[in-house]
Amino acid sequence: MDLLIINGPNLNLLGRREPGIYGSRSFDDFFPELVEAFPDHTLTHFQSNHEGALIDKLHEVGFTHHGIVLNAGGFTHTSVALGDAVAGIATPVVEVHLSNIAAREEFRHKSLIAKHCAGSIAGFGLESYRLAVQWFTSQRPKRVGFGR
Amino acid sequence: MDLLIINGPNLNLLGRREPGIYGSRSFDDFFPELVEAFPDHTLTHFQSNHEGALIDKLHEVGFTHHGIVLNAGGFTHTSVALGDAVAGIATPVVEVHLSNIAAREEFRHKSLIAKHCAGSIAGFGLESYRLAVQWFTSQRPKRVGFGR
Amino acid sequence: MDLLIINGPNLNLLGRREPGIYGSRSFDDFFPELVEAFPDHTLTHFQSNHEGALIDKLHEVGFTHHGIVLNAGGFTHTSVALGDAVAGIATPVVEVHLSNIAAREEFRHKSLIAKHCAGSIAGFGLESYRLAVQWFTSQRPKRVGFGR
Amino acid sequence: MDLLIINGPNLNLLGRREPGIYGSRSFDDFFPELVEAFPDHTLTHFQSNHEGALIDKLHEVGFTHHGIVLNAGGFTHTSVALGDAVAGIATPVVEVHLSNIAAREEFRHKSLIAKHCAGSIAGFGLESYRLAVQWFTSQRPKRVGFGR
Amino acid sequence: MDLLIINGPNLNLLGRREPGIYGSRSFDDFFPELVEAFPDHTLTHFQSNHEGALIDKLHEVGFTHHGIVLNAGGFTHTSVALGDAVAGIATPVVEVHLSNIAAREEFRHKSLIAKHCAGSIAGFGLESYRLAVQWFTSQRPKRVGFGR
Amino acid sequence: MDLLIINGPNLNLLGRREPGIYGSRSFDDFFPELVEAFPDHTLTHFQSNHEGALIDKLHEVGFTHHGIVLNAGGFTHTSVALGDAVAGIATPVVEVHLSNIAAREEFRHKSLIAKHCAGSIAGFGLESYRLAVQWFTSQRPKRVGFGR
Amino acid sequence: MDLLIINGPNLNLLGRREPGIYGSRSFDDFFPELVEAFPDHTLTHFQSNHEGALIDKLHEVGFTHHGIVLNAGGFTHTSVALGDAVAGIATPVVEVHLSNIAAREEFRHKSLIAKHCAGSIAGFGLESYRLAVQWFTSQRPKRVGFGR
Amino acid sequence: MDLLIINGPNLNLLGRREPGIYGSRSFDDFFPELVEAFPDHTLTHFQSNHEGALIDKLHEVGFTHHGIVLNAGGFTHTSVALGDAVAGIATPVVEVHLSNIAAREEFRHKSLIAKHCAGSIAGFGLESYRLAVQWFTSQRPKRVGFGR
Amino acid sequence: MDLLIINGPNLNLLGRREPGIYGSRSFDDFFPELVEAFPDHTLTHFQSNHEGALIDKLHEVGFTHHGIVLNAGGFTHTSVALGDAVAGIATPVVEVHLSNIAAREEFRHKSLIAKHCAGSIAGFGLESYRLAVQWFTSQRPKRVGFGR
Amino acid sequence: MDLLIINGPNLNLLGRREPGIYGSRSFDDFFPELVEAFPDHTLTHFQSNHEGALIDKLHEVGFTHHGIVLNAGGFTHTSVALGDAVAGIATPVVEVHLSNIAAREEFRHKSLIAKHCAGSIAGFGLESYRLAVQWFTSQRPKRVGFGR
Amino acid sequence: MDLLIINGPNLNLLGRREPGIYGSRSFDDFFPELVEAFPDHTLTHFQSNHEGALIDKLHEVGFTHHGIVLNAGGFTHTSVALGDAVAGIATPVVEVHLSNIAAREEFRHKSLIAKHCAGSIAGFGLESYRLAVQWFTSQRPKRVGFGR
Amino acid sequence: MDLLIINGPNLNLLGRREPGIYGSRSFDDFFPELVEAFPDHTLTHFQSNHEGALIDKLHEVGFTHHGIVLNAGGFTHTSVALGDAVAGIATPVVEVHLSNIAAREEFRHKSLIAKHCAGSIAGFGLESYRLAVQWFTSQRPKRVGFGR
Repeated sequence: MDLLIINGPNLNLLGRREPGIYGSRSFDDFFPELVEAFPDHTLTHFQSNHEGALIDKLHEVGFTHHGIVLNAGGFTHTSVALGDAVAGIATPVVEVHLSNIAAREEFRHKSLIAKHCAGSIAGFGLESYRLAVQWFTSQRPKRVGFGR
Repeated sequence: MDLLIINGPNLNLLGRREPGIYGSRSFDDFFPELVEAFPDHTLTHFQSNHEGALIDKLHEVGFTHHGIVLNAGGFTHTSVALGDAVAGIATPVVEVHLSNIAAREEFRHKSLIAKHCAGSIAGFGLESYRLAVQWFTSQRPKRVGFGR
Repeated sequence: MDLLIINGPNLNLLGRREPGIYGSRSFDDFFPELVEAFPDHTLTHFQSNHEGALIDKLHEVGFTHHGIVLNAGGFTHTSVALGDAVAGIATPVVEVHLSNIAAREEFRHKSLIAKHCAGSIAGFGLESYRLAVQWFTSQRPKRVGFGR
Repeated sequence: MDLLIINGPNLNLLGRREPGIYGSRSFDDFFPELVEAFPDHTLTHFQSNHEGALIDKLHEVGFTHHGIVLNAGGFTHTSVALGDAVAGIATPVVEVHLSNIAAREEFRHKSLIAKHCAGSIAGFGLESYRLAVQWFTSQRPKRVGFGR
Repeated sequence: MDLLIINGPNLNLLGRREPGIYGSRSFDDFFPELVEAFPDHTLTHFQSNHEGALIDKLHEVGFTHHGIVLNAGGFTHTSVALGDAVAGIATPVVEVHLSNIAAREEFRHKSLIAKHCAGSIAGFGLESYRLAVQWFTSQRPKRVGFGR
Repeated sequence: MDLLIINGPNLNLLGRREPGIYGSRSFDDFFPELVEAFPDHTLTHFQSNHEGALIDKLHEVGFTHHGIVLNAGGFTHTSVALGDAVAGIATPVVEVHLSNIAAREEFRHKSLIAKHCAGSIAGFGLESYRLAVQWFTSQRPKRVGFGR
Repeated sequence: MDLLIINGPNLNLLGRREPGIYGSRSFDDFFPELVEAFPDHTLTHFQSNHEGALIDKLHEVGFTHHGIVLNAGGFTHTSVALGDAVAGIATPVVEVHLSNIAAREEFRHKSLIAKHCAGSIAGFGLESYRLAVQWFTSQRPKRVGFGR
Repeated sequence: MDLLIINGPNLNLLGRREPGIYGSRSFDDFFPELVEAFPDHTLTHFQSNHEGALIDKLHEVGFTHHGIVLNAGGFTHTSVALGDAVAGIATPVVEVHLSNIAAREEFRHKSLIAKHCAGSIAGFGLESYRLAVQWFTSQRPKRVGFGR
Repeated sequence: MDLLIINGPNLNLLGRREPGIYGSRSFDDFFPELVEAFPDHTLTHFQSNHEGALIDKLHEVGFTHHGIVLNAGGFTHTSVALGDAVAGIATPVVEVHLSNIAAREEFRHKSLIAKHCAGSIAGFGLESYRLAVQWFTSQRPKRVGFGR
Repeated sequence: MDLLIINGPNLNLLGRREPGIYGSRSFDDFFPELVEAFPDHTLTHFQSNHEGALIDKLHEVGFTHHGIVLNAGGFTHTSVALGDAVAGIATPVVEVHLSNIAAREEFRHKSLIAKHCAGSIAGFGLESYRLAVQWFTSQRPKRVGFGR
Repeated sequence: MDLLIINGPNLNLLGRREPGIYGSRSFDDFFPELVEAFPDHTLTHFQSNHEGALIDKLHEVGFTHHGIVLNAGGFTHTSVALGDAVAGIATPVVEVHLSNIAAREEFRHKSLIAKHCAGSIAGFGLESYRLAVQWFTSQRPKRVGFGR
Repeated sequence: MDLLIINGPNLNLLGRREPGIYGSRSFDDFFPELVEAFPDHTLTHFQSNHEGALIDKLHEVGFTHHGIVLNAGGFTHTSVALGDAVAGIATPVVEVHLSNIAAREEFRHKSLIAKHCAGSIAGFGLESYRLAVQWFTSQRPKRVGFGR
């Protein structure tokens, strides 16, 4: 399976940024461990602080990859365009969050992206990514999104 | 690890109830498969349509078990008391939903329980439960809740 | 036809409770008169102040009875779980209210149950029940819910 | 008893208009059947797409008739003036709707007329009218409105 | 001065309708007294329950009369079209109400017409009309609206 | 008749303050003209920018005077205490405004005082006061508030 | 093609009414020019300030004409009944506005009619009508509404 | 006097649950002290996490006891049915809270029960109960509720 | 203990003002009885209709007195400044209300002061003050606010 | 005339993306047809998923081109910056949408861009662009925006 | 230049009141330092907890001074009258706040005064005052308000 | 001190764009003057219409510079991601605006960025930048943000 992890704005700061909320480990430190855990699959990673770049990437892989794990960061709560991109592609997307967004500010409780995803996983720190990949890899390859 | 799965109102109808949304397999059919998948842990299951019974059960196991997987069904969106119960116990709780609640009616987008949980998993059908158990069992026993 | 009348919280106080709003006759006094009015049908009655008991009862009869007349009392305005139960069963349900809820407090104007019912009847006192039974009995037995 | 059925805007299209919602039978086809069902009473029918004409008619019969069955159509949700007219007359009015308005758009959930009526009946198609007439005819003639 | 008093829906019921709120005297009984009180001016009266007829009348006199006293009844709170008509004509309009609308239901607190009027007078019963006429007649004829 | 005119905050600036909205004549310039117009009555005037002073004054005269004309200025929209004071006294109060508050900012559309007044007059500039006094003086002395 | 242009309240004042917003040319002056521009089609025009008359007209032509261009004026924002009429007929309707309603008062930003139309055109003055007719005439006759 | 103290959901956890908010003393530890403080009265205690059980209990004692002290816990903010039960019985009820609910989450600021109670006492920890009992015992036995 | 009772706007009218809501006894009549009931403590009383005077008084005693009982009247619902004053001083404050504010107008349900107080007592008429004093006097002198 | 068509996020997917809503023809397929239809004018096309790139482009051509046709896609509903860009340039802009946004999700009913445009055209699929170009080309070159 | 610094309610407590938010230095300690920093200008200071006194002071100096620096404290968020006073005078006013009000409670995010000011400065503690004075003193004397 | 001024969308148009609001001087014209005014510090300037570029820049300098002056333009009101970036870096940020945003459209009154800044300065045109730089340069170098 070809799986892409897409990280949105400020996730490049992971480990440096508000460690009380986001933990003290960077994504680059975690990613090799994740790749290793799923030796039968191809995992790639893309990060950008540019909403347009995230949309471009979704379009680029969204008709060929088997799955996308998306942490849209702050765009989660404000980007209709990103939600439309997820709705417009064929590849199933799983939304993940490091923190438990329901326990944070009111404006983080609403996702404009979630309803177009196969499912959502939030609050488990970097483990959220692992659970998302887990779900994709336990699906039979031919299934193109469940619960959409 | 002692893990309890708590299912709230109408989840006893699973498989019979609105299969377009909830799938056509009952929880009783799925549970043995789940137990089998985690042979090193003790999984038990409790279902009730009574809010009070769910609270009683949370109190009963909430200071001794290692984890609780909670699908509060319709109470998710209306029960302050159930949220208070989750907040009041020591055992970490993971909230799960079968369906992608963000893609359904507006009133299902808000959870009164999520903010007191370690994390939330929604939209993967019965696989949501498996991912939740997965997370607990991959934690080291002594950890008493992450991301709370 | 097997028809069940389900009365929710505080309806056991009928006749004693705020007679200016609800009238001074108890349901137990009225029910035999109702039964007598429909000699060709089997009418039964269930009352509980427990939301869970109402859900249990809906599940119990909701795949075999021909119709349910439901006055959910105060749960009408707050119980997503009860609305889900009505949606989850096969038997058609008619919502009734003694008082004209549109003429009372704002929070009573919204029903979480109505949209899952065949129809609603409100404001006619105990006659609301009679009209609901009337509708069921004038339907042809094989019809399993109209206007849903 | 003198009973008038008042139908508001677009109800003249019944049978032609969105049959999935409103059914495929016109009111003119149904009305003779209704008249026949209540041989001891005088039933008349008035339809207009003009809010002012509906108010004029309510004033005209509202101090002499025994009852009015009112389906105000789209005016139900927007006309303070029609609600005021119902409040201003002496004859009791029963509000009816063909469809289950609680299961439709949000703006149809609120009636500006209901609170001035004796009661409301919604969701039973043309049978809604029959139940309303039924209620009036089972009242003792001298009663001038119940539950107002 | 040519002054027209326009009364909207249900004001033809004055004296019969909810006398606790609107008093027990009809407008037809009051109008001759008003005419007599202003012998140097021409007062006429128009009433309709039809929003369109009120708009037609505003258009008809709205470029020639010196003033209009408008009690739009229930349309006050719902009619953008009537407000547009007042804004579209040249004659100044004074809004009047019999009752103190600020002491009644929430939805009567907002007028869609007031902002296009020279001023508003509410709560003095039939005297509200007299005060409005008083204001017009104390203006110098050439003034075409003050405070607009 | 003993009538008091109470002017609230910033009305001492009348004539200097935003003349486009409030006109260019001060209240002190206008008041003698008003006194002269009603030679059979005793008119007095009180102005303060202090909410407490306005309440004190309402209490002081509110059980002995025949009428109070109140322009509460900005307190109109924010002072529950002033509204309570009007409700707590026996003398009827008429609310006046120089400008047409319905044509100004949204927050000026709501009065916390109006519902406790006999009536409201707005938009006629200084003439608003004259109309209010007019109403009081045309009442029979024994009437203690109409339309309350 | 048979095309009808329906103009709602106050549009008979075009050219006289608030020319800063609506321009200084009347519809009667413009219409012949429009007719002339589409010599192969039959264009007719209907204007009324009566909501009921607009609904009657929609019903009258709504099962035979090829297209309707509707400027509902102030009813656009308040009339559920008119929206229902558009939804209830077979002929496709295009909504037009002279002014850019998005640049005006908040309450003009919402149309109760738009969602039942084929499309909307706003802000081009009288040219809005021409563009609407243009669209209809460029459609193939057999197409009965696009994008509905 | 017969006085019943009713404690709702999660109050059985008192002393164990979030001691920073609720203190570290259990109700069972406190209750004997309370009983002792009012030797001339009969104090009993009932706790349940079941909304239905609380309603049943209110019905059971609500026509014979002299007073009820009710801490409805999380149901305070969500239960119309419990509010209806308080309104439906004859015994006066005093609402108490351990914590100062006005200083906590927004959703705890609104009580659906308070308006049916004689009064409310909040924020004094376990002393809130003592003040409530104090009030009842200082009332003359025949008074059946003050300030309702 | 030095305890000060502060009464806000309109409370000087107690006994004269809306006796149906506030009772018919003045505070001056009640205060000596209160003083007498707590002979071991120094109780003083301050009343003003001026928000500023209430703030000045809170500052004056707020670092030396043992407790303050505050009925802020209408300022309760509107004064951020008064709430800030309570938050800014060291002496604990108990909020009291004569009437059950939860049973009155919506705008009285929200207190801007409560969250800064030790606790709130409402609905017991003049007895509300007694309970508040009771609480202070039963505290040990050194405690400087509980439940804040 | 120099006219630029700007397409925002996801419009590069046209033809592949949700064809039920957006149709099955790509913009690249349609554009040559559009160019051909207006042989006397210079039409160019720019698409980007980057909000910043759209703003850059508006700045680049916004002081020299004769017109811009803008379909901002999902940015329509969220981008204050794009609306500010339209307001900040001299070239008139016409807003277009493929789908009838009024018939879709609530959040698509509000445009942050519309009020700065000359006009809006929505719901006609790719024909929306043609109508917009039509309007520009029928304007006399010197007119720099109408109805702004 | 004559510049007046006006401090509103509770600012006399500065240094004693919630030092975590407002710092531990009193205004009286800071003011001489500020005066010294601007030797070429006349700085005076006025503080009151009385809204009316603040309005009186604005009127007193508002037509002669060159500038006013206003920290209205809690009145910032509630006083329409104070905002009207700022709007009614000729002297430009700069709004200052010690704390970053955007980072505090929701109700502090809205200022009723800001829109009538030349500008706002918030969050720099006592330095906010210095920046405001700085701005005035760097203006040329003849300029009477910028950016209003 | 190393200070960076970051300007967001449309600020490159300064001087050309809506000069009535933003003035007629470009930032490039002003910047050298600003640099000259603070000869002891290093001031640099960055402008972009791309939200992602602004975030990238904040990350780039946000752990080394001494201060950042940020005018986020339209992103101020919509960008959670930009606010998160400000929160995620170590360098203190001061928010500035040219215009008095409180005096403009409602949607400009709310900043998603302000709460993460040291303070805000708005309404002084280009002088807003100077005041912000002034504040940074008057801080002692070692202070890393005040009032955060």
